[in-house]
Amino acid sequence: MRVGIGDDCAVLRPPRGHEVLVTTDFSLEDVHFRREWHPAEAVGHRCLARGLSDIAAMGGEPLAAFLSLALPGDLEQHWVDDFIRGVLKLASKFKLPLAGGDIAQSPGGVLADIMVVGSVPQGKAVLRSGASAGDRIYVTGTLGGSAAALALLRQGRKLRPRDFPQHFAPMPRIEVGRVLRQKKLATAMIDISDGLSVDLRHICEESGVGARIDARRLPLGGEPITRRLVNESFALHGGEDYELLFTSRKQVPVNIAGVPITCIGEITRERRVVVARGGRETELKQRGWEHFTEGVSS
Amino acid sequence: MRVGIGDDCAVLRPPRGHEVLVTTDFSLEDVHFRREWHPAEAVGHRCLARGLSDIAAMGGEPLAAFLSLALPGDLEQHWVDDFIRGVLKLASKFKLPLAGGDIAQSPGGVLADIMVVGSVPQGKAVLRSGASAGDRIYVTGTLGGSAAALALLRQGRKLRPRDFPQHFAPMPRIEVGRVLRQKKLATAMIDISDGLSVDLRHICEESGVGARIDARRLPLGGEPITRRLVNESFALHGGEDYELLFTSRKQVPVNIAGVPITCIGEITRERRVVVARGGRETELKQRGWEHFTEGVSS
Repeated sequence: MRVGIGDDCAVLRPPRGHEVLVTTDFSLEDVHFRREWHPAEAVGHRCLARGLSDIAAMGGEPLAAFLSLALPGDLEQHWVDDFIRGVLKLASKFKLPLAGGDIAQSPGGVLADIMVVGSVPQGKAVLRSGASAGDRIYVTGTLGGSAAALALLRQGRKLRPRDFPQHFAPMPRIEVGRVLRQKKLATAMIDISDGLSVDLRHICEESGVGARIDARRLPLGGEPITRRLVNESFALHGGEDYELLFTSRKQVPVNIAGVPITCIGEITRERRVVVARGGRETELKQRGWEHFTEGVSS
Repeated sequence: MRVGIGDDCAVLRPPRGHEVLVTTDFSLEDVHFRREWHPAEAVGHRCLARGLSDIAAMGGEPLAAFLSLALPGDLEQHWVDDFIRGVLKLASKFKLPLAGGDIAQSPGGVLADIMVVGSVPQGKAVLRSGASAGDRIYVTGTLGGSAAALALLRQGRKLRPRDFPQHFAPMPRIEVGRVLRQKKLATAMIDISDGLSVDLRHICEESGVGARIDARRLPLGGEPITRRLVNESFALHGGEDYELLFTSRKQVPVNIAGVPITCIGEITRERRVVVARGGRETELKQRGWEHFTEGVSS
């Protein structure tokens, strides 16, 4: 970065021969987080993680983040400080500068809009549209752990963030995305933010294919306390895993950059998405994560 | 642009040898606009104009816009349609694609966050920090017209947007900024969004200089109805002009790309900003535009 906060625009210098990636995501109070459930630092972490996860899903390198914050007039300063600390701590893990943004008074709750700019060698971005019949389907890490913690929060349980990192501090899979892109392992990729059933459908639609998921192979997540809670439904429909979902026609290592990689099914010619349980196949309904409300959030 | 809405990130391909410019600006209901004062189409236009004006102030070329929108659940669809039309109409003037964004339900009023990505040949961005003593100070167009219309709105007057384009449909000075950069005319530049007194101070602080403004030279703006209203105070402190303020040590044309250019003073060694009226000089107080509220908006 050449110029950061303090001029009309930030000036970024992407590596030579790279294209520029841009992603923008809201984190809205009572939609994406609740102040009584989520400490400010976790809200900040999750806010930036959403953007970084999109960069990871293209196989990209993050260059800079921009944060627009609208805050209620009566919000305590320490909440804001903790929130910013959460953003900056995660940013520092990727040597990512916070290069600009805007701040304003909110008429409602806390509203954060994170924008992450990244780069990828020209023509090498891993899109959603590259899957073809016969490709295997893989996920990084485990699924459903974040949704399981959310289920406990909904029940009124108080959770300590450090006991539930999958929910409070998901780690964007930048390194895995980079390796998959460099080694040309992934034909299509997306991050799982809305739930596997929704995000797999995006790959199938963009690629003009279908998919068969083997239910027994789903890597069920969860921390010690939530592990018993996580069932197939959490793994298929739970949101905010921020794992990568990708397709490949090559031999894929079982572990990349310290993250386990699991084959969960295959891409099919027939344009429907099914789940196989033993010998039976059923259509996979899209029951994505609806955040906390019935809102229009995407 | 290679990939727009529909993948994890937008993929942009800046011209070879260009750096990337990024700017982000909130447009918040009851802070930057009021639904009873501003038709949705004007809100959309002004929202994008804020971002484009920042690109213009660097001498940049806009590449793509990203819009994050949080909308109250009970907002009429036609308001949203009109807002988007306002954004797209202005975008089309600059052949600018709307390449992504986010949409969510707002707990309060309408919240829009616009991000504009642009580019500029490497090392050629016009910064705020390049002014030196002896440079002349220039502004494009006229000043105070937008604030004068706002004053009428505050008095309860109903205004027809087409009668007050300086307020409802300001035109970002992309073409002027480009010419100033190409001809190396500007040593420092900023856009006037918060009022001349505030924005000139930014140039002085970043450049480590002072300034003397000649009050008689200020190009007072205003449409036929507001012209009598616009006084020196509106021109010095009124916000949302979206004109360019720049310094130069060369001969500057009186008109660039159809926009009048006016010399309003000069940069001084002494680090203070003064206004000269006849033979008397007084310190220029920073009384920038505070939007509609006493908020923390920047």
